[in-house]
Amino acid sequence: MPRNQQIVLDNRPHGEAVASNFKLVVADTPELKDGEVLVRHHFLSLDPYMRGRMNESKSYAASQALGEVMIGGTVGEVAESKHPKYAVGDKVVGMGGWQEYSVVNAEQPGALRKVDTTHVPLSHYLGAVGMPGVTAWYGLVKIIAPKAGDTVVVSAATGAVGSAFAALAKARGCRAVGIAGGADKCKYAVDELGFDACIDYKQHSDVKAMSKALKEACPNGIDGYFENVGGWIMDAVMLRMNAFSRIALCGMIAGYDGAPLPMANPALMLINRMKVEGFIVSEHMEVWPEALKELGTLVGTGKLRPRETIAHGIAAAPEAFLGLLKGKNFGKQLVKLI
Amino acid sequence: MPRNQQIVLDNRPHGEAVASNFKLVVADTPELKDGEVLVRHHFLSLDPYMRGRMNESKSYAASQALGEVMIGGTVGEVAESKHPKYAVGDKVVGMGGWQEYSVVNAEQPGALRKVDTTHVPLSHYLGAVGMPGVTAWYGLVKIIAPKAGDTVVVSAATGAVGSAFAALAKARGCRAVGIAGGADKCKYAVDELGFDACIDYKQHSDVKAMSKALKEACPNGIDGYFENVGGWIMDAVMLRMNAFSRIALCGMIAGYDGAPLPMANPALMLINRMKVEGFIVSEHMEVWPEALKELGTLVGTGKLRPRETIAHGIAAAPEAFLGLLKGKNFGKQLVKLI
Repeated sequence: MPRNQQIVLDNRPHGEAVASNFKLVVADTPELKDGEVLVRHHFLSLDPYMRGRMNESKSYAASQALGEVMIGGTVGEVAESKHPKYAVGDKVVGMGGWQEYSVVNAEQPGALRKVDTTHVPLSHYLGAVGMPGVTAWYGLVKIIAPKAGDTVVVSAATGAVGSAFAALAKARGCRAVGIAGGADKCKYAVDELGFDACIDYKQHSDVKAMSKALKEACPNGIDGYFENVGGWIMDAVMLRMNAFSRIALCGMIAGYDGAPLPMANPALMLINRMKVEGFIVSEHMEVWPEALKELGTLVGTGKLRPRETIAHGIAAAPEAFLGLLKGKNFGKQLVKLI
Repeated sequence: MPRNQQIVLDNRPHGEAVASNFKLVVADTPELKDGEVLVRHHFLSLDPYMRGRMNESKSYAASQALGEVMIGGTVGEVAESKHPKYAVGDKVVGMGGWQEYSVVNAEQPGALRKVDTTHVPLSHYLGAVGMPGVTAWYGLVKIIAPKAGDTVVVSAATGAVGSAFAALAKARGCRAVGIAGGADKCKYAVDELGFDACIDYKQHSDVKAMSKALKEACPNGIDGYFENVGGWIMDAVMLRMNAFSRIALCGMIAGYDGAPLPMANPALMLINRMKVEGFIVSEHMEVWPEALKELGTLVGTGKLRPRETIAHGIAAAPEAFLGLLKGKNFGKQLVKLI
């Protein structure tokens, strides 16, 4: 059986996550039982939600157990199969975790999904045509529910979620405005992702400056906001939200590392009769087929051309993940394993 | 024409509202034109939203103009009529403002509504069977949307909104828990209003103590919260909210007087996939008939027996209003005018 390098969670972070929270170990892959499939991972997905799983404290999902392989989405190829529906060479997406191989009970509903790489590159099933894409779709379509002409804003605009958000919003006739860190990311957001405007938060680094920049970028105010970061950026956006506006609350990356970040003026939710809704996309599996279909078409027709930042080899995963938490990635952060 | 004592807004508050913001003036009531009705007010309603109208700053409604009669709900009796649908002696509810008489253009839709005082005392059309009752109904039925067995919590529990909330929640098979200030109010909430429990915030006067008291009163957590106050009480409630819980945001009375009150841990909205929605009941006129019908039946059958605090004479309105903002009232605050 092949030798399988794995990253396990060795200990929990105190405050900021660090590389020594993780440990590289090597295991043999076990013999397959009937109904099981051995998947060789081509790409591992790194996503902000993983930081929440590293904590013992209450989060929206169970904690990652110590000493076990870090969870994570993977795409790869069937290397061995004892399941009649999977053949060697099939391309599959699953939750294989931070390791080179995984053994999957293919009988379990949703554990493994075959994908077609004719029009969509395999790695995109971890991004635009995967969980991050569906996340953008759910927040935009089901919570913000914009009409044509609405102005919608997304933070972390050039990430996997933000990229998909722009394409989905433009397809609905919205004005799409991004918030990202750095002139290069903002240029990319407008030139490549289709945003109508993008604000560099490093150039507008307090509530007042950001709020002023938002006023210029959103002359008719903001009807919908997709929140990936929280903190002062959210405070600034709230100052520009229109009556009856909606916020899809998806990430609070700035708050993962320690003390809760307050919201400066929650009374704005009342004054503007806003709706704010938190969600986690894995609890809305019913929308995935419709969302993936639209996202696959957007990618297949070139209307959504997501960028990827690729680290190489499983050993590189911890540093790449820590970089993601600091916004060092540019587009979807992946680890290429073969 | 009768002499009409009025309270006008003389100047805007800086920080806390004070009696000298108001001025008592006397005017003659004008001659009626065709289609107009002269109403003699029996009761004036005092409500927390009026504080927001006193500010120049952006609120969910237009500012009250200086030098004009303070707005407010009124019930009374038709004293003269030049409208075929209204006869002298008819009991009516309207927005007559802080004055003894008002001249109403009865052609204007919604300006005046005849009410039946056979089973419901006239004053209750300003409370349980009026705007505050419909406010409770909308927040509970349309935003919290509880199922039987859910635990729902309301702050300012013995006020006009809280009282109606309890009756409506019990009618839906919920566990209803109130938050109020003082042992007498809490006893009344449980003994008379039907709350299953009521927490005295004066006895649990910080987030930690309130959160502990809520844990005891809500052993299955909180599924829905109707917010009338904001600030630290909301922070404490949020610590006990269940996954997929809902907050109907109706009042932020604690924040009206100056600096915005922050929300300590907005990430809880994400962690618990909550929905938080601000609303103002006058923007949802479509629900009023259904809501008023249920509320009228609850009052008529004795299932909702709201308490009133009554000030006497229009000159007493400013002090009664300032007392309301400090929670000195016990139940619906009214001013009796004849």
